[in-house]
Amino acid sequence: MAKIRIIQAPMAGAQDAELTIAVCKAGGIGSLPAAMLSIEQLSQELEKLQAHCAGQIYNVNFFAHKAPTINEEQYERWLNLLRPYLREFDLSEQDIPQGEGRRPFDEASLAILEKFRVPIVSFHFGLPDDKLLAAVKATGAQVWSSATTVEEALYLEYKGVDAIIAQGFEAGGHRGMFLNKDLTQQVGTFALLPNILKAVNCPVITAGGISDATTVSYAKQMGASAVQVGTAFLLADEAKTTVEHRKALQSAEAQHTVITNVLSGGYARGIANRFVKDLGGIHSDALPFPLASLAVGMLNVAASKQDRTDFRSMWAGQNALLAKPGTAADIMTALCLD
Amino acid sequence: MAKIRIIQAPMAGAQDAELTIAVCKAGGIGSLPAAMLSIEQLSQELEKLQAHCAGQIYNVNFFAHKAPTINEEQYERWLNLLRPYLREFDLSEQDIPQGEGRRPFDEASLAILEKFRVPIVSFHFGLPDDKLLAAVKATGAQVWSSATTVEEALYLEYKGVDAIIAQGFEAGGHRGMFLNKDLTQQVGTFALLPNILKAVNCPVITAGGISDATTVSYAKQMGASAVQVGTAFLLADEAKTTVEHRKALQSAEAQHTVITNVLSGGYARGIANRFVKDLGGIHSDALPFPLASLAVGMLNVAASKQDRTDFRSMWAGQNALLAKPGTAADIMTALCLD
Repeated sequence: MAKIRIIQAPMAGAQDAELTIAVCKAGGIGSLPAAMLSIEQLSQELEKLQAHCAGQIYNVNFFAHKAPTINEEQYERWLNLLRPYLREFDLSEQDIPQGEGRRPFDEASLAILEKFRVPIVSFHFGLPDDKLLAAVKATGAQVWSSATTVEEALYLEYKGVDAIIAQGFEAGGHRGMFLNKDLTQQVGTFALLPNILKAVNCPVITAGGISDATTVSYAKQMGASAVQVGTAFLLADEAKTTVEHRKALQSAEAQHTVITNVLSGGYARGIANRFVKDLGGIHSDALPFPLASLAVGMLNVAASKQDRTDFRSMWAGQNALLAKPGTAADIMTALCLD
Repeated sequence: MAKIRIIQAPMAGAQDAELTIAVCKAGGIGSLPAAMLSIEQLSQELEKLQAHCAGQIYNVNFFAHKAPTINEEQYERWLNLLRPYLREFDLSEQDIPQGEGRRPFDEASLAILEKFRVPIVSFHFGLPDDKLLAAVKATGAQVWSSATTVEEALYLEYKGVDAIIAQGFEAGGHRGMFLNKDLTQQVGTFALLPNILKAVNCPVITAGGISDATTVSYAKQMGASAVQVGTAFLLADEAKTTVEHRKALQSAEAQHTVITNVLSGGYARGIANRFVKDLGGIHSDALPFPLASLAVGMLNVAASKQDRTDFRSMWAGQNALLAKPGTAADIMTALCLD
């Protein structure tokens, strides 16, 4: 069988173009996460990609969530959860940054894509509206998006994506779920991939639990057109993963990951920090994605100053223990051993 | 590659020896679930197995849970949940059967095994105590048990089982989890199987999401020594699956299964009935396994008289939609196509 393409999963907050470039140079498809970058920062990163990855295939990832609106009562319930932590770290509710948290893909993002023609644009949390989507396609980019259910895969195919990323229950980080917020509909890779392959005609990239050569090989045998690997690249020298996160990924802690909504408001899988443990993983009073990230980000900065990871995101998939540290090229080699 | 052995999963409440025999005759390893049978009923079923499966390998499955003790307050909270339903079906709390619900493996079960020497004895929810376990082994039976985490697999290997059934998140019915009750530790087949294979030396049978020839083939390629298939056999002519359950399994409903604890007190995956939906799938006031099943069983009988499935267990795995009806022999043939 031919070698399968390896896509480095975009990991907002844990990498910049340095990892993207290193993966591309090692024969993979590098991804740049745009969700936490300002337009200026994104421009700078794309200039680096253009300079180092000319003629190569790389991917730029945007979030396509709908910005939520909340009422005062919701905010008050969230503050009630936060107050003990705010007191502990000598912060007040007035210190919590206001804003939209993570910017969804918009006209300004589109303008950047029209300037920097990137080979692949992937979206998480669905797709932007039809007009924006058509404009992205008009730049010549391939469009990809993630599906966590057969229903989402059918939706994405109907909207004309070039490839679907089947994101299984095992996957680390934010689940791309967008048609509903019902976690019970989330299925394991072993059930998701065969069902999506039966349901759609477009290429299916699989994600969730792929962390070494063996699991890459399994995914290929299961019929995936390509694999998307996140957690394994968190240990790359070129990633911006924090020291504490790297340590946790290589410890027994990584054997147990949980899906939580209290760090950003969206369901995401990672190694539990104190805040996640305190609130029991999933809490109905967490503000909707991405609004919870505003206060949590602030608390993380304060706790980090005391060398504490109480609020740190330490995303990881269920096969984190299979990952090994090294350069992105080392990791690519290890993933391609088969 | 050699053909992989197919084990029909024991499915208490949905089958008796008729299915076990049919699967054995079709070249699989049939299983007989003993958990809901009296000693007399078990004897009768084993006589049938001896008569029809002489010289064949079959499996008898027992539960090995610790019988729970509850206090009055717990019972009162459970009654509070039940009262609206009791009223609706014209029942009173005095009608709820008392007892242990499902009998764990005990001296009486052992005596049966000493009489009917069965080739394989499998346990769910861990293992019986060391003395009973040694006595089971002394009958000459192979001993198997299910692991839902690497930790459980290591425990079972330490206790000397002959094979471990790696039960992934995708699996239908009761999760065999026994070292803790933390659902966040449950991992998808795609993560569970490779990690258990790395951790133990004994043969690993995989379960969870295996419902057709393609998924059987995937499991083989992933290194499983054999596969255990449950949901696909629920549609066998020889199973005792109810008409309503069969209908649900072959409808769009089967695309969405949930893990619930309200039907028995144990975590089990199935198609949600009204009671499961009403209580939100998992409810902290459900009595511990297997005590919740006493009242739910009674309510099911009452609702069934009105042709309602409000309390019916309709267990199913996440790949239920891949299953097809037919004789057990037809189903075996379809699973072995590869």
